[in-house]
Amino acid sequence: MPMAIEDLRQELTGLLGDRGLLTEWTQRRTYESDGLTGYRIVPALVALPEDVQQVVGVVRACARHGVPLVPRGAGTGLSGGALPHADGVLIALSRMRRIVEVDAANQRITVEPGVTNAQVSRAVAEHDLYYAPDPSSQVVCSIGGNVAENSGGAHCLKYGFTTHHVLACEVVLPDGEVVELGGPTLDAPGYDLRGVFVGSEGTLGIVTKVSLRLLRRPDAVRTLVADFPSPSAAGDAVSANIAAGIVPAAVEMMDNLAIQACEADAHAGFTLDAGAALIVELDGPAAECDAAFADVTRLCNENGATSIRIAGDASDRDLIWKGRKAAFAAMGRLSPDYFVQDGVIPRTRLGECLARIDEMAVEAGLRVANVFHAGDGNLHPLVLYTAADPEQAERAETLSRQIAELCVSFGGSLSGEHGIGADKACSMPTMFTADDLAVMDRVRAAFDPHGRCNPDKVFPTPRLCGERPGPYRPHPLESAGVIERM
Amino acid sequence: MPMAIEDLRQELTGLLGDRGLLTEWTQRRTYESDGLTGYRIVPALVALPEDVQQVVGVVRACARHGVPLVPRGAGTGLSGGALPHADGVLIALSRMRRIVEVDAANQRITVEPGVTNAQVSRAVAEHDLYYAPDPSSQVVCSIGGNVAENSGGAHCLKYGFTTHHVLACEVVLPDGEVVELGGPTLDAPGYDLRGVFVGSEGTLGIVTKVSLRLLRRPDAVRTLVADFPSPSAAGDAVSANIAAGIVPAAVEMMDNLAIQACEADAHAGFTLDAGAALIVELDGPAAECDAAFADVTRLCNENGATSIRIAGDASDRDLIWKGRKAAFAAMGRLSPDYFVQDGVIPRTRLGECLARIDEMAVEAGLRVANVFHAGDGNLHPLVLYTAADPEQAERAETLSRQIAELCVSFGGSLSGEHGIGADKACSMPTMFTADDLAVMDRVRAAFDPHGRCNPDKVFPTPRLCGERPGPYRPHPLESAGVIERM
Repeated sequence: MPMAIEDLRQELTGLLGDRGLLTEWTQRRTYESDGLTGYRIVPALVALPEDVQQVVGVVRACARHGVPLVPRGAGTGLSGGALPHADGVLIALSRMRRIVEVDAANQRITVEPGVTNAQVSRAVAEHDLYYAPDPSSQVVCSIGGNVAENSGGAHCLKYGFTTHHVLACEVVLPDGEVVELGGPTLDAPGYDLRGVFVGSEGTLGIVTKVSLRLLRRPDAVRTLVADFPSPSAAGDAVSANIAAGIVPAAVEMMDNLAIQACEADAHAGFTLDAGAALIVELDGPAAECDAAFADVTRLCNENGATSIRIAGDASDRDLIWKGRKAAFAAMGRLSPDYFVQDGVIPRTRLGECLARIDEMAVEAGLRVANVFHAGDGNLHPLVLYTAADPEQAERAETLSRQIAELCVSFGGSLSGEHGIGADKACSMPTMFTADDLAVMDRVRAAFDPHGRCNPDKVFPTPRLCGERPGPYRPHPLESAGVIERM
Repeated sequence: MPMAIEDLRQELTGLLGDRGLLTEWTQRRTYESDGLTGYRIVPALVALPEDVQQVVGVVRACARHGVPLVPRGAGTGLSGGALPHADGVLIALSRMRRIVEVDAANQRITVEPGVTNAQVSRAVAEHDLYYAPDPSSQVVCSIGGNVAENSGGAHCLKYGFTTHHVLACEVVLPDGEVVELGGPTLDAPGYDLRGVFVGSEGTLGIVTKVSLRLLRRPDAVRTLVADFPSPSAAGDAVSANIAAGIVPAAVEMMDNLAIQACEADAHAGFTLDAGAALIVELDGPAAECDAAFADVTRLCNENGATSIRIAGDASDRDLIWKGRKAAFAAMGRLSPDYFVQDGVIPRTRLGECLARIDEMAVEAGLRVANVFHAGDGNLHPLVLYTAADPEQAERAETLSRQIAELCVSFGGSLSGEHGIGADKACSMPTMFTADDLAVMDRVRAAFDPHGRCNPDKVFPTPRLCGERPGPYRPHPLESAGVIERM
């Protein structure tokens, strides 16, 4: 154990007690990866603070000893944003899970970062309110992690991302200062640092309290599953609905491979031989839902739907969503291993892009399952492979990266909602110029001048990516020899 | 003329030509104030660039000569954000008014900063699209200014502020670098610098191109004017509607003084002896509008509405909005001078706060007219006074600042949509701690390390505000002797 870490260990044991600091390798190893399980680093120490003062204490101690820190929520992230630093402290916020205040009249709630996404909605259900962003992992993922990643979800098409629902954050900066970013109203004076913090992937500080905007539960919800002969026919139906001015709460697409995996896992009643399925959900006043629902079914039929199933009641709707949200986990039934990609394209180019991904999969001799937020063009291609075959694994990783680059070349984005993290840092120059990245780096330095907060994430550096970073390199931390490949 | 300015004058004449650089005092004087007419500074030079390369040239020249710059849109801002610097260059973007690209299928438009807010909607009307944020000054105010101020408007209750509609900005940084902030999708990777730039009031750079999100025109629009015996009865009606889960497109309130001024100006048919009037607008699918409209009228009646007028057609609706949007200008009919205040309170405390403002007005022996965005608690109290009576003018300014502080003490905000600018910089510590402000200052330095971009705005400094800035001081630039009081 390096000297700085040994000093820190003693200091933090005094601050956090034995239960609040994990020092044994077997304990620390539990935190070696997040949802991006392909990469693992065992952190030097794991701190489990219980309140903001303990967070301040840990952060100040790290600052004094010059030790890097990595914040972690529930560890469900898919881009390695919470990948630990081998010589650093992993700060897990899972013990800070109090609901601080419910202000139902003003439709606001204040929570600690370890509260799960689903708990927020549960805490305000009695007031007929809910929290809109709904990542598939919502039962386990934490609000702190949602803030770090600017998490999305199926209903972001209508309701926006986490950043549109965070009113204010209490944040411990890398030097231990505690600041309040944002405020009780949506348009606070001064710079929108609330906005810059949301989605900063743990590089600007540690969120210790979050005020969220709540929405009133809609009067009515209508959900249907429409089967189509192919993803491109389903894509045309999506375009037709959007062009007709319909704003569904959610429009999700699954291709045949995804349908098979989801159905085997959740028995949601999906049609096993459909080329693609769309889940369309409408919500709002009952009168609006009914009128729009008629239009949606008509437009699906006009675009070649082979069958339309309407959710009979709330439990049927829950089953459909359970099927959809199980997609990533269920993929294990089709393939021992897979890469989850996350890119965005203009939704007008959906059919074209899916066809190109199909071609690329054939060229690479691999299967790609597609399950994604079709309404906002946020693709999640899953590249299936067998890790036991290293050559195939390498082909799969290359294909997955090529798909992300394809999204950028279509005028879209490297990432829709999973973040850049450790995974895509070297690909950032495909989307941003050197000047663009330099400004981000200066803003990072404004919060963290010594670069101690979640280092080696989000931004490319020559050390990690070589002089000319690009999308096809092996993971930078791997070649740097600091991580162990699964 | 100081040496640096003389050198700059020669250099900029070469770059911009005689028509692109104003050097004569009579020409420069045209730019001495923005919509906050109480303060005036004649800039040393006025540059009128026609494209991004000219902006880069002016900014680089200012950087080389160490001369401050102040960007300006249409000059309609109400917080003195575009107040010139006496030794600096005012950069007016009014000649950059091209519509660069309309992408109707993806509901996006790209424009130069001098394009007016209303022109954006006109440019896409043929596609049945429009741009949602609608400040009262929308016919003349520019998109560049809207970005700088994160402008709101009557329909922000349902549709959000400028920041919710800006996808990307091309920005010239204070050192002349050109960067792209944001991207074509709403959740771009990296830090949300688009978000930090929107609302930065000209302190971080100059926007030279903006991509905006467009909305589809709603199927139906329903507008009513409900009269009430008092603002607090009208406030109760607002609360009842929001509590019932209705999300109107707009809920505007005018008190009796505001009604009288608006009616005299616009002849919109407002009831002259009503204690208060609410304008409620619903939009969306016709079925939704009709259902919600029945609820709104019922809830207004239950809360004491004395009469309800429903707009008969589009021209009647336009007349109602013309009346409302004329409010500030129309106030001149009731009083030779007035201060426009802009604060936010939680909408659940509307009645309580209005009652307190009434008491404060009586104590100060002044009249206060209220016209505001009731749905989101964004007050615009207008403090009426006669500038010819300096003692009364001072009382009016004090009352106006006390009202802003009252909003903060109610758990609200110093400013809703007009910005901090020169006007409220010294009041920022009433809302933010020293640590909060220090982080903002470091972010400012990340963009503008030499503090040359719109200096003396937004943030308090000991030079401007003394060692202990607070809400009741005279305008800082006035005591510093650099501005002439109107």
